[in-house]
Amino acid sequence: MFNPFKKQKIETKPLSGFTELLPDEQIAFNTIRDSVKQTYEMFGFLPIDTPVLERADVLLAKAGGETEKQIYQFTKGDTELAMRFDLTVPLARYVAEHYNDLVFPFRRYAIGKVYRGERAQAGRFREFYQCDIDIVGEVNLDLRNDAEIPNIIYTIFKKLDFGPFTIRINNRKIFNGLFSALSVADSGPLMQVIDKLDKIGISEVTKELENLSLSTDQIEKIVSFIAITGTTEEILAQLRALNIQDEQFITGVSELEEVMRLVYQYGVPEDYAVIDLSIARGLDYYTGTIFETKLSNYPDIGSVCSGGRYDNLASSYTNKKLPGVGASIGLTRLFDQLLKKGVIIPNVQTSTRVLLVPTTDSDKEALTLATTLREKGIPAEISFTNGKVKKSMSYVDKLNIPFVVLIGEDEIASNTYMLKNIKTGEQNAWQIEELLKKIS
Amino acid sequence: MFNPFKKQKIETKPLSGFTELLPDEQIAFNTIRDSVKQTYEMFGFLPIDTPVLERADVLLAKAGGETEKQIYQFTKGDTELAMRFDLTVPLARYVAEHYNDLVFPFRRYAIGKVYRGERAQAGRFREFYQCDIDIVGEVNLDLRNDAEIPNIIYTIFKKLDFGPFTIRINNRKIFNGLFSALSVADSGPLMQVIDKLDKIGISEVTKELENLSLSTDQIEKIVSFIAITGTTEEILAQLRALNIQDEQFITGVSELEEVMRLVYQYGVPEDYAVIDLSIARGLDYYTGTIFETKLSNYPDIGSVCSGGRYDNLASSYTNKKLPGVGASIGLTRLFDQLLKKGVIIPNVQTSTRVLLVPTTDSDKEALTLATTLREKGIPAEISFTNGKVKKSMSYVDKLNIPFVVLIGEDEIASNTYMLKNIKTGEQNAWQIEELLKKIS
Repeated sequence: MFNPFKKQKIETKPLSGFTELLPDEQIAFNTIRDSVKQTYEMFGFLPIDTPVLERADVLLAKAGGETEKQIYQFTKGDTELAMRFDLTVPLARYVAEHYNDLVFPFRRYAIGKVYRGERAQAGRFREFYQCDIDIVGEVNLDLRNDAEIPNIIYTIFKKLDFGPFTIRINNRKIFNGLFSALSVADSGPLMQVIDKLDKIGISEVTKELENLSLSTDQIEKIVSFIAITGTTEEILAQLRALNIQDEQFITGVSELEEVMRLVYQYGVPEDYAVIDLSIARGLDYYTGTIFETKLSNYPDIGSVCSGGRYDNLASSYTNKKLPGVGASIGLTRLFDQLLKKGVIIPNVQTSTRVLLVPTTDSDKEALTLATTLREKGIPAEISFTNGKVKKSMSYVDKLNIPFVVLIGEDEIASNTYMLKNIKTGEQNAWQIEELLKKIS
Repeated sequence: MFNPFKKQKIETKPLSGFTELLPDEQIAFNTIRDSVKQTYEMFGFLPIDTPVLERADVLLAKAGGETEKQIYQFTKGDTELAMRFDLTVPLARYVAEHYNDLVFPFRRYAIGKVYRGERAQAGRFREFYQCDIDIVGEVNLDLRNDAEIPNIIYTIFKKLDFGPFTIRINNRKIFNGLFSALSVADSGPLMQVIDKLDKIGISEVTKELENLSLSTDQIEKIVSFIAITGTTEEILAQLRALNIQDEQFITGVSELEEVMRLVYQYGVPEDYAVIDLSIARGLDYYTGTIFETKLSNYPDIGSVCSGGRYDNLASSYTNKKLPGVGASIGLTRLFDQLLKKGVIIPNVQTSTRVLLVPTTDSDKEALTLATTLREKGIPAEISFTNGKVKKSMSYVDKLNIPFVVLIGEDEIASNTYMLKNIKTGEQNAWQIEELLKKIS
C-alpha cells in the first residue's frame, strides 16, 4: 500500500520469520489449536505452561550444534537469558524442579510459542507454536505408552480432517543394533544423514555416507536396510530375516512389533500407522520408538507431528531416571502451509451472532437487549452509528454476522424487535421470547 | 528439598519474577483465562495474536521513562529486538499494518504474555499474562463504546465470582480542564502524583505536590477536588457546582455523566460502577474516560482491570487517526494473589473421568474401551501397571479421578466391565451401554 506520508513512520511489518494473522485466520488457527488441546485432554494429559525465558545454561545443557546457534540469547543485568527453542527442555527442567509434587506417570501437554533464530527462509518461522504431549515415567515407563502417542496423533489428525495421513513409526534400537553389528563406531552423524533420505533421496544419502568414511560394504548394507518396504508384517519379517545377532537390534524389532500391535489394537487403521525404517529423527536424545506424521496429499510439508521415546529426560537437571515418550505438532508451519494451499479456508469472521441497530436516538432498548442476549449465551454487539443503518449493514456484511435486530420508534411502541435474517432476507417483528428462540 | 547429589546439576527454579504452576493450579488458571476469553467473545471481540518479539524501535516509540528501562532488549544479527511489555503497543502496530484488511470499529481481544524486567519484588512478575480488549475506531469512536468496557469488566468479574468489586470511572478531561483553569502548565507529573493517592494517602500526595512547585492555593484546590465523594449523582452535582469555566472540564463532566448513564443502562448495578475522581492512570496516552477495578474484599491487590480512552492509538506508525478505548486484566498477578489468599482453591486435578485397569495380561479390551469412551467424549486413561491394582488406585486417588473400570478374566468372559465409583465406593459389573451411561 503506497502512502507518501508514511515514510517518517516506523516500519509496522512484523520481523522476518515472525507472523501474525488477520482475525478470520486467527479464528481458524484457534479452532485448530483448541481441537488439539481437546484431544490431549480427552487422553488425560495435564496442562503446564513454563516461562518463555529461561536461564541460558538450562537451555544450553540440552541444545547442541545447529540448535545452539539458533537460540535467542542475551544478558539482562548479570543474568544470561535465553528464549526457549522447544517445549521439551523446559519440561525436563519442570519435572526435575517439581518432582515431589507430580504424579507419575506424568502426562502433560503444553501449547506455546518457541523461538529459533534460523536463517530466514520461505516456510520457516523464528517464532512458532508447538503443541506437545509427553508421558514421563519414574525409573520405568511401560512400552504401551509408546503406542498411545500414535493413537493420539491419529485421533487429532482424523478430527482435523486434512485428508489421509500416515504415522510412520520406527525404533532407534534397530538402527543402533545394526550399526553395532556392522561395527560403526559413531552412529550420530550417520543417523543425521539417513534422516535426510526423504529430503535428498537415496543417491545423495549414499554420497553423504561415503563422506563419513564408511566401507562400501557397510554403505551397501545400510542402504539395502533402509530400503526395506512392505506391510507391517512384511517389514517385521524382513527385519527378522536379516538375522542380525545383536541384542539391541532384536529388542528394537520386538519393541516395534509390540508398538504396532497395540496401535492397531487401539483402532488405528493399518493405512494410517506404518513402519518406516528410513526415519531416524535428527535429535540425538531419542533412544527407542520414533514417529513422524505425513499428510498424504501434502507431502512437501514434511512431518507435521514427530516424536519418540527417550530413556532419560532430565539427566542434566536431576539424578532421577525419568524415561519418557512424546510428540510435538509444529502448528504455525502446518497452518501457514495449509492456508496457502487453500486447504484451510477461514470462514468465520466473528463470534457475534446478532448486531443490534437502534434507529432512533434511544439506546436504552438496545443496551438492555444486548445484556439479555449475552446472559442467554448469544454473542451480541450494538451498532453505535446513530441511526446510520446503511453503515451498520455494511459492518454486518463484512463480518458475516447472521442476524440484525432493528430497534426503532415503532418497535419501542409495540414492545417488539425487528429481526432480519441476513442469509434468507426474512424480516419480522417479534417479542422478546420469540426473538431469543429465533436467534439461538 | 535436600538432595546431596544435585549440586553439580543445573538450577531448575524458574528465573526470579517468572512463574510456573503445578498442574492443578494450571487447570484453575486456564479456567479463569477461558472464562475471560468467553466473555470477550460474547461481546463480539475478535482474537489477535501478535509476536512476543518486535523491532526495538516499534516498542520504544511508545515506551518512556520507567517502562523503557524495563524492556528486555537485545541484538540478534544486526537487528535490535525487544520483548513486548504490553499488548497495546503491538495492537497499534497491528492496526497500522493491517489497516486495509480490518473492519472498523475494530473490536479485538488479545491474551498473552508480556515482559517487564522490573526490580524483583514480592507479587511483581517479569513475565505475566495480560488479557486485553480494545475497540478502535476510524477517525471517530462513539462515546457509547466507553460505556461498554465497564459493562464487560462487570460481566467478567461477576462470572469469576471473587466477591464484590467496584469499577471506578473517571475522565481525564476533568483533570486537564481543572489544571488548565488553575493555570498548571504541565499536567503530566501532577497526574502521576495524584495517581498514587490510593497507595500513599492524601498527606503524602500533598507533600509530593509541594515538590512540583505549585502554589498553596493550587494545591488546596487540587486536594479538595480529588476529595469529592458521594453517589454518582452527588459527585456530578458537586463537579458542576465547582463552576469551572473551562471547555475541557465541562466536556469531561458531561462525558462522564453520559458514560455512567449508559453503564447503568446496560444493567451494571450502582454498587459496582462508581465515579472515582482520584484515579488518573499513570500512562500518559489516555485522553478521556479512564477505569480501574478493585476487589472489595482484597483491596491490597490494587486494580485488577484498568484501561481507558485514547484519542490516537497508532500515531507513531500511521497518519490515520485511530481513537480507541480498552482495558486490560493482569491475570498472572491476580491469580497469584488470590491463590495465596486461598480465594482460588485448585480442585480439579485432571480432565480424566475414568481410569481403565486391566487386571490380566490382556490389554486388548482396555485399549478398545479407551477408544470407545473417547469417541463418546469421555476422557479416559489406561493404567499400564501390569495388574498392580494398588498402584493404579493410588494414581486415581492422587489425581482425583472419579471412576475406575477393572477389566479381568471374569469381565472378559462375561463381556462386562467392573465399574467403581470412587466417591460412593459402589462397584458393579455393566455391559458397555450401561457403562457409558453411568460414566457420562
